[in-house]
Amino acid sequence: MHITILGGNGFLGRKIAARLVADGALGGTPVSSLTLFDLAAAPAPPASFLVRSLAGDLAELPADAIPPGTSVVFHLAAVVSSAAEADYELGRRVNLRGTDAVVDACRRLPRSDAGPPRVVFTSSVASFGGGQGAVVTDDARQMPGNSYGAQKAAAELILADASRRGFLDAVSLRLPTVVIRPGRPNAAASSFVSAILREPLLGLRATLPVPDGFAVWVCSPRRAVDWLLHAAAMDTAALGADRGINPPGLSVTAGAMLAALDKVRPDASALVDRRPDPAVAAIVGAWPAAFAATRSPALGFTRHEGLAELIQAFIDDDLDATRQDRAALP
Amino acid sequence: MHITILGGNGFLGRKIAARLVADGALGGTPVSSLTLFDLAAAPAPPASFLVRSLAGDLAELPADAIPPGTSVVFHLAAVVSSAAEADYELGRRVNLRGTDAVVDACRRLPRSDAGPPRVVFTSSVASFGGGQGAVVTDDARQMPGNSYGAQKAAAELILADASRRGFLDAVSLRLPTVVIRPGRPNAAASSFVSAILREPLLGLRATLPVPDGFAVWVCSPRRAVDWLLHAAAMDTAALGADRGINPPGLSVTAGAMLAALDKVRPDASALVDRRPDPAVAAIVGAWPAAFAATRSPALGFTRHEGLAELIQAFIDDDLDATRQDRAALP
Repeated sequence: MHITILGGNGFLGRKIAARLVADGALGGTPVSSLTLFDLAAAPAPPASFLVRSLAGDLAELPADAIPPGTSVVFHLAAVVSSAAEADYELGRRVNLRGTDAVVDACRRLPRSDAGPPRVVFTSSVASFGGGQGAVVTDDARQMPGNSYGAQKAAAELILADASRRGFLDAVSLRLPTVVIRPGRPNAAASSFVSAILREPLLGLRATLPVPDGFAVWVCSPRRAVDWLLHAAAMDTAALGADRGINPPGLSVTAGAMLAALDKVRPDASALVDRRPDPAVAAIVGAWPAAFAATRSPALGFTRHEGLAELIQAFIDDDLDATRQDRAALP
Repeated sequence: MHITILGGNGFLGRKIAARLVADGALGGTPVSSLTLFDLAAAPAPPASFLVRSLAGDLAELPADAIPPGTSVVFHLAAVVSSAAEADYELGRRVNLRGTDAVVDACRRLPRSDAGPPRVVFTSSVASFGGGQGAVVTDDARQMPGNSYGAQKAAAELILADASRRGFLDAVSLRLPTVVIRPGRPNAAASSFVSAILREPLLGLRATLPVPDGFAVWVCSPRRAVDWLLHAAAMDTAALGADRGINPPGLSVTAGAMLAALDKVRPDASALVDRRPDPAVAAIVGAWPAAFAATRSPALGFTRHEGLAELIQAFIDDDLDATRQDRAALP
């Protein structure tokens, strides 16, 4: 099977590529070739199958990014929350026009006996509103509080309609906040959620801008990758018209994250400074903090591991690389 | 105040223009000028204020369609259900790219002390699924069963986000099936809903393709115009982030419509032939047949009149013009 990863140079895109290389197959079918597409060409990992790396603009998607015979497209390319808020046209161009370009690339493929390509789309918890008090049910309506979430929710509608028309076969995963992300603390409002765990593990200080009781809906990179691969291989007949999946993430408080950190690395949380920042709390506080996700486990999406396991997985998978990246930068 | 009607040559666009001409004001403020925009230029009605008529493509909206100083934009221009289903690119171009063009025209206006322009958008009952058994609540999620509905729901998300950002101030009215529409029976699946009332009033036969117990969510043209004008003048502070309005329409069965017809014009329903068409029933049967609309009456949207009054209003407002149009055509 041929697979394309749009956003193949991103954090999750690279992890999916690495899993496909390691497994050599998806859902029991051998991978024959893989195309990575991103703004900057991704390094092509050595593999037992052909890997091509393309660079370009998603909204002007070249035909060879999704070549004839493509079985699965991971559509992970996005302008994320703070960037889409800062630059309306850029967010719209990538998050909406880019999704239209994916639809068009799929509907122009020669018809195949195997049916239209599966498109696995990363939607987001930000496509919902609700805030700290919310427990989002599987049939909740999406009332996003930022342009990124609005564009993701609109893209879901476009992909569901394209599925109904038979242009493609979409599964939209509303991913929780992924922790622990590598990289430095940045201007994103949710940056602290990873930073309060990652920085102490690197021996560095971090700042907690919200109260200990503040809750966040999170998932680990490992679980996100498992879910994306399951979405690529599952039988979509069970989805019917409803192509949006709230995966079974984890609702955790900042205090619980720090307590779990101390269990894995005793006293590490002493490196975290509590410095309330109402501006950060206002933004992150608009996102729903919990979901009642009952449909996704029934559809085979694996339940989330605990916090201690999530932290240990970062140590096993990403800590060394994160440390090396930091050392290499000024 | 300056007002623009996009889709100013359509059925509802002409009725709104006529009301503005008759009233000379909107929400107590005198109208100073009116721009009508449509694919084909609308005839400019004689008025006490300046009326300009422009022709063009909504997706390439010219800057003078929404000139500086515009207070209200009625965004009624659309590729409707059967056409958007038949031509995917045309539907997307007008229903989505066209809405983006409205957003861009509004956000490029010079800032005004009066705030951004009000945009009154006609969304649709087709943006929901559910079918005959459904009673759609005010916080129901939109899971449309056709491209038109998907494009309307996505446009609502884009307009709500543009409102949050302060580019414009949107109210999206999910209009029921408007009856009685003038014109001939056509290929639209919902054509029969108007035809079974209109044709007998013209002394012509009509066909009912669904059982007498089949329910439809409808509104009269008079009520639709009232709602659109109220949406243009209301205080949107009460809406908060939720810019979508399910107006208080009427859930009626085909049998009840025919009984009301006979009350207004005795025995007229004898001109209606019952000829079940499962294909029509399948399409119209996917739309929700009833809403529990409690928010819109609380926001000042007037409750719907009864069926007999709806039929009498067509006789008073549109029957003569419809008869003349028919006579003028081959």
